[in-house]
Amino acid sequence: MKVALLGPVAWRTPPHHYGPWEQVTSLLAEGLTARGVDVTLFATLDSLTAATLDGVCAHGYAEDPAMDGRVWEAMHVAHAFGRSAEFDLVHNHLDWLPLAFAAQCRAPLLTTVHGFSGPAILPAYARARSRYVSISDADRSPDLDYAATIHHGIAFDGFPFRAAAGHGLVVFGRVHPDKGTRTAIEIARRAGMPLTICGIVADQRYFDEQILPHVDGEQVVYLGSVGPEQRGEILSSAAALLHPIAFAEPFGLAVVESMACGTPVVAYARGSMPEVVDEGVTGHLVHDVAEAVAAVSRIGDIDRQQCRDHAGKRFSADRMVDDYLRLYHTIVD
Amino acid sequence: MKVALLGPVAWRTPPHHYGPWEQVTSLLAEGLTARGVDVTLFATLDSLTAATLDGVCAHGYAEDPAMDGRVWEAMHVAHAFGRSAEFDLVHNHLDWLPLAFAAQCRAPLLTTVHGFSGPAILPAYARARSRYVSISDADRSPDLDYAATIHHGIAFDGFPFRAAAGHGLVVFGRVHPDKGTRTAIEIARRAGMPLTICGIVADQRYFDEQILPHVDGEQVVYLGSVGPEQRGEILSSAAALLHPIAFAEPFGLAVVESMACGTPVVAYARGSMPEVVDEGVTGHLVHDVAEAVAAVSRIGDIDRQQCRDHAGKRFSADRMVDDYLRLYHTIVD
Repeated sequence: MKVALLGPVAWRTPPHHYGPWEQVTSLLAEGLTARGVDVTLFATLDSLTAATLDGVCAHGYAEDPAMDGRVWEAMHVAHAFGRSAEFDLVHNHLDWLPLAFAAQCRAPLLTTVHGFSGPAILPAYARARSRYVSISDADRSPDLDYAATIHHGIAFDGFPFRAAAGHGLVVFGRVHPDKGTRTAIEIARRAGMPLTICGIVADQRYFDEQILPHVDGEQVVYLGSVGPEQRGEILSSAAALLHPIAFAEPFGLAVVESMACGTPVVAYARGSMPEVVDEGVTGHLVHDVAEAVAAVSRIGDIDRQQCRDHAGKRFSADRMVDDYLRLYHTIVD
Repeated sequence: MKVALLGPVAWRTPPHHYGPWEQVTSLLAEGLTARGVDVTLFATLDSLTAATLDGVCAHGYAEDPAMDGRVWEAMHVAHAFGRSAEFDLVHNHLDWLPLAFAAQCRAPLLTTVHGFSGPAILPAYARARSRYVSISDADRSPDLDYAATIHHGIAFDGFPFRAAAGHGLVVFGRVHPDKGTRTAIEIARRAGMPLTICGIVADQRYFDEQILPHVDGEQVVYLGSVGPEQRGEILSSAAALLHPIAFAEPFGLAVVESMACGTPVVAYARGSMPEVVDEGVTGHLVHDVAEAVAAVSRIGDIDRQQCRDHAGKRFSADRMVDDYLRLYHTIVD
């Protein structure tokens, strides 16, 4: 089977630091190639892959202020679609732009919806000749037909297990009101535990006004964006990951990464969280700061080995790759 | 000859009020159709044209906050390119997005560059298989080959000539620092003449802080966006049009419209202005407020009939349509 993976070009695949769409695309490219699928990955040309690499962007537009992301993304999609007749399937990880041009794709098109940025992009989905995969049941639009929900998986190898819980709390992801970074500070303060914040600043004003004044290097530490190696170290050393999101998050890769380290999650029960966190097994689902503080206080009840094992069954990269390959066969065969 | 005009979809074609790209596309569609060319105009579906109309947008995205302009523009371009094999020529008025997908266009592609929004869009131009028309010599990029410069034309019928100069000054166009609206207020104040400001607010903060405090309904009047009929009335009643631009404007439709009414122009000598304004015949080219005030004081020296006649030779819609049709023939024949 010849498959084109049409990946995003905001960041390298896999990303140096942040880039969840690129991360998932990378795991899929490597996993499919390892299973003998003939994969061409359309991504930035500095990407690292065992698949065949093609594209037009020397590097990610998010890493280069001189590049206009809209322009390079369009050239990237056009280039991939220009080669589409060579493949049995084109698998789009790039949101709505390829859908607008779906009629120019000369192979069956499958789109993983990595998250709806807003209702105004739905017309491109509704009109396009593409099959859709949702990344959680919670993220489904009632206006679209879906071929499957396939939860993301991660490479468990990269996340070291630690049996003994650490003493601090950690919050991972973009520093943005959606992610509840300020709420995490409040939960940690009331729980009387130190908090480590990791992630790129996605809202500078929020960071400057709501986060930075609390950062003292002891009770609240801000590490910025941390790469894959440091990530496992930080997550495995924590007592719990806080995930007090203020929006219906389609999926939470950091949540699964934490579970993989054996570190349970205290998450607000929004969006995909009830699908991802198993109450009492891999963490606790809560609704406000008070519930979160109570959940942190009893976090020792969760068996860290069981947390990792359970997450491994549900969210390994192998499981994700198998799910996609099964779906590919139903489309191509 | 079968020609597809790929027009923008921000506004209706022709626009109700503002929309210079749609305005030029409209004049071209009507002029070519009148000359017997088989034209299909790809535009919003509420557009008015004697050509064949096609498209996917019910109305302009700039008129509907629920529409994501990027999404609808992409679907619009994809739809037009899906039909491209039916034409002898596709003439693009839509900036860089069609260029990114130029390989999907199955007819010769000609692009009128209505203005470079910035250097970051140039890669789409440089890589695309398209011929280019610049709308002024001043707007040419050194990195591109051009088939021609074709100055815009306007429908002189819509602009009433008035032999006697009025008593006030007028400034037309987007209210934005680029257009020098605040500078126009200063010029009028020093010249001791009333100023009428017409145009959509493109920079709300600039309008609120720099313009609105000067609007008193007498010395400075703000009329907002004015439609085609009112425009001719206002322009023909003025002593002069002020055009103290702060950027290298690719072309200035309002400048030509003013000349058509016999109303001379006092313009800053930037961008295309030295190509459009003929010193002493259709207006004066100046470099600062003091020179502008001096030019206004001697504006009676300009013969308004000669101003209109000269502009009519250089900037009629007929001249523009003839120029394009000649170019089409060199490409198609």
